[in-house]
Amino acid sequence: MRKIEKWDVFEVAVQGKAEGNPFRDYEIHGTFEGPEECMTVDGFYDGDGTYRVRFMPSREGIYTYRIWGSFSGEVTKGSFEATPAVGHKNHGRVQVTDGCHLSYEDGTSYYSIGTTCYAWVHQDMALQEQTLETLAEGPFNKIRFCMFPKFYEFNRKEPITYPYERGTGEGLDQSLIEKEERERILFPGMQPPVPDLNFHYQKPNLEHFQRFDLRIRQLRDLGIEADLILMHPYDRWGLNVMNRESCDLYLKYVNARFGAYRNVWWSLANEYDLMVTKTEGDWERYGAFFMEKDPYRHLCSIHNCMKFYDYKREWISHCSLQRVDFYRHVEYTDEYMETLQKPVVWDEICYEGNLPFGWGNLTPEEMVRRFWETFLRGGHAGHGETYLDEEDLIWWSHGGILKGESPKRLAFLLKICQETPGRYLKKGKGIFDEVVGISENPEEEPESDNPFEIRFHDYEIHYLGITRPTYRMFYLPEDREYEIDVIDTWAMTVTPMGVHKGATRIDLPEKQYMAIRLRKAT
Amino acid sequence: MRKIEKWDVFEVAVQGKAEGNPFRDYEIHGTFEGPEECMTVDGFYDGDGTYRVRFMPSREGIYTYRIWGSFSGEVTKGSFEATPAVGHKNHGRVQVTDGCHLSYEDGTSYYSIGTTCYAWVHQDMALQEQTLETLAEGPFNKIRFCMFPKFYEFNRKEPITYPYERGTGEGLDQSLIEKEERERILFPGMQPPVPDLNFHYQKPNLEHFQRFDLRIRQLRDLGIEADLILMHPYDRWGLNVMNRESCDLYLKYVNARFGAYRNVWWSLANEYDLMVTKTEGDWERYGAFFMEKDPYRHLCSIHNCMKFYDYKREWISHCSLQRVDFYRHVEYTDEYMETLQKPVVWDEICYEGNLPFGWGNLTPEEMVRRFWETFLRGGHAGHGETYLDEEDLIWWSHGGILKGESPKRLAFLLKICQETPGRYLKKGKGIFDEVVGISENPEEEPESDNPFEIRFHDYEIHYLGITRPTYRMFYLPEDREYEIDVIDTWAMTVTPMGVHKGATRIDLPEKQYMAIRLRKAT
Repeated sequence: MRKIEKWDVFEVAVQGKAEGNPFRDYEIHGTFEGPEECMTVDGFYDGDGTYRVRFMPSREGIYTYRIWGSFSGEVTKGSFEATPAVGHKNHGRVQVTDGCHLSYEDGTSYYSIGTTCYAWVHQDMALQEQTLETLAEGPFNKIRFCMFPKFYEFNRKEPITYPYERGTGEGLDQSLIEKEERERILFPGMQPPVPDLNFHYQKPNLEHFQRFDLRIRQLRDLGIEADLILMHPYDRWGLNVMNRESCDLYLKYVNARFGAYRNVWWSLANEYDLMVTKTEGDWERYGAFFMEKDPYRHLCSIHNCMKFYDYKREWISHCSLQRVDFYRHVEYTDEYMETLQKPVVWDEICYEGNLPFGWGNLTPEEMVRRFWETFLRGGHAGHGETYLDEEDLIWWSHGGILKGESPKRLAFLLKICQETPGRYLKKGKGIFDEVVGISENPEEEPESDNPFEIRFHDYEIHYLGITRPTYRMFYLPEDREYEIDVIDTWAMTVTPMGVHKGATRIDLPEKQYMAIRLRKAT
Repeated sequence: MRKIEKWDVFEVAVQGKAEGNPFRDYEIHGTFEGPEECMTVDGFYDGDGTYRVRFMPSREGIYTYRIWGSFSGEVTKGSFEATPAVGHKNHGRVQVTDGCHLSYEDGTSYYSIGTTCYAWVHQDMALQEQTLETLAEGPFNKIRFCMFPKFYEFNRKEPITYPYERGTGEGLDQSLIEKEERERILFPGMQPPVPDLNFHYQKPNLEHFQRFDLRIRQLRDLGIEADLILMHPYDRWGLNVMNRESCDLYLKYVNARFGAYRNVWWSLANEYDLMVTKTEGDWERYGAFFMEKDPYRHLCSIHNCMKFYDYKREWISHCSLQRVDFYRHVEYTDEYMETLQKPVVWDEICYEGNLPFGWGNLTPEEMVRRFWETFLRGGHAGHGETYLDEEDLIWWSHGGILKGESPKRLAFLLKICQETPGRYLKKGKGIFDEVVGISENPEEEPESDNPFEIRFHDYEIHYLGITRPTYRMFYLPEDREYEIDVIDTWAMTVTPMGVHKGATRIDLPEKQYMAIRLRKAT
């Protein structure tokens, strides 16, 4: 009997009908029954008469299955054994925990240090390999990228494959073509693209999707979540003007093909509000349709440009945010968590770099500051890098190599987070503007009426951000001792300052980006 | 006939009754008649039977006057000539202009580069002289300071004079003493002060107030506005628990004594919301009472700590703000101007320094950034400096010398502002997050529906803040040429970049805190 680890992919390949358009004309399903789990999933056509059904078991033990549907007159049956997840980096899916936090399915903490390389899987293969090498060395445990190719500033080259076979525009919506032409949002200096609509929008190009299989698996083996962006506005190949049937077919295909990978997250769209060919009603319909197809309930969201989506909608598991204000954004993390009661993931907080655009020229210091502000409030954040390059190879879109100074500091932040007891930090109360993260099981004392009085929890990190005091006073309880460390978030050092109680002065090096960690002495 | 310049102080000293408590028991008024101006002002007692009446003429020509009241059985009459204001730095009062801007009475622009030395006039005389020397060299054209002495962290020494003569607590309100004791707001680690209530709160100490005369005049001669703080919470000498009669007497005295100085602004209180002995009703009453006494209608406001006052109140001329959010404050300047329809003056945006408190440890870079953000939106801001000092002499409270790096950059900002045509900058529309200041007479073109389309005005400054692009594109009109400068707000350089029209690339040094100035070529 075949064996796979729990949360790995069990795949069955069967032969079936190849006449007509098998992507559209036939259905294939797999029903899997195992210990306390019974699930029916869609399969997908993979060319040359081959259909595949993929399944991710969430339990250990013997599973039996049946493969059935209009693709064939026959039903295929079989069984396999799901073994314990002892393999490399196999902690199951990332899931919502305690309302507005994230953790792995096996209970391991998950602090999402993301990055964005929108079009890396559309670059030449050597560059893709380089990207994977960079990721293998970096701190990132999530990456956002697009299923469809990207047309934008610094992104003028054709992708190595198109998502559809060549054709004559089958499956497009003429009224959307006109709407896009009429209402397209152009930034100053941007020329409208010359459309290339010569595809058959109901015939996926298998080479394209097979490569995504490969990359998602490679990311999984690196312990990196694949945040797949299904639609986006940066298009000239007709992918935004597909008719509803084509869109449904696409979403169903993606779901069936990639849904069994434990490291998949769904991002229905990037900058949805720049897509003039979709209405809120469309997003709601596609979102609900898509998540109904996903028996695993992977994390699913939609990413904004200028206006947040209504993240309270049921099909949305977490808030995938782009900052909408220049000055204050991640600093709202805890407020949004409180209001929306969902995890907050800042997927765009501008990028470290030097581009002319407002979103692409942060210093590494500011990028790292935004991460600390986010995580100490219980949120998650994504990095990106946009340094001008002679060959226009920019990490944010193309992947390749990292030139910036922030990633190693993000690794340091992740290490500090992982040293925190429990599965996450949440916002605590501080005095004098510092951000305070406390571990998930704080002593829940009632807060005082005095706005300046604070109570100390067993585990606290005070982040001082852009301020740079020469010392800080802590008026600790007289009857409880704390080990105190000074953390330099930029220099990546942790300096033990001894064990203290009562009024305590902690000297600091008069630098920005310092933090102070208090741990109840045992 | 005596002559003084318009907007200078004309003073008449007369002898009168000295029995009882002349501060409280008698009235003295002066009625002044001149060209298109007739005004009755209060005089004040200055000891040894001498009363003084001060008057600031706002017109040129011959004035006649009468001094009258219960202080004497006689009426004193006379006349003087007000001559044109040709003297050093004599531009009249600073006034509200065009709704929510400030300018001098003679039409000269006034960009308020303030500073704060709360207790400088309470320090020893040598230190006060040093403060004046520092001010003479610095960029500041406004200073905030307290009429009453200050008791606070780093402020434990007694003042060189008390505002009242020694006594046994005459003029206090027992219920306020108890309220203060009960409800006083203490920051962590702060000990409640030991009160010294042995004063007569209806007998001003003349040495104290005469010294303020001297300092206000010296500031005037340096071209510096004196933003006089009349009440504040940092007290141990009973000044917060005076009864209503004593408070009225105090406010009346201050008004009569200092109101004729053209450089006086009134700040009814500092951090009014930390004063538990005053209610909103009290502030409204004192504010209205005080401004009714001021025939010159000097600029008058009240300064908050954690909660803005209702700056729409009639007695308030401008918003004297302390930031209430750590991350976003001066960036709201234009919104507040729009909402409140009054000038916005940020009197506390934290201080350059290294103190342990949240408000006292900004880098100079951040201080200067906050000024640029403010001024390009049409607002005004105040500096302060809080570097730890071996002798606890800290500019923010004691004056003395400046150690910081921001003041010379504020002088540079003032120079750039003063080069702006018209009397002020106001917020214009930019693309990609930069702050855009345009001169007061922009070409008022209708804005476009496209959120990314911008129109260019005759004079613009684009401030790039913390971002650091390597270049910036401007899509200027094809039919209008602009002289373009790159301004390094930190290095204090202006680099001409030539004359341009149409699509224009402006190269930048990839540093933070840059600005780009566009001036329509003539």
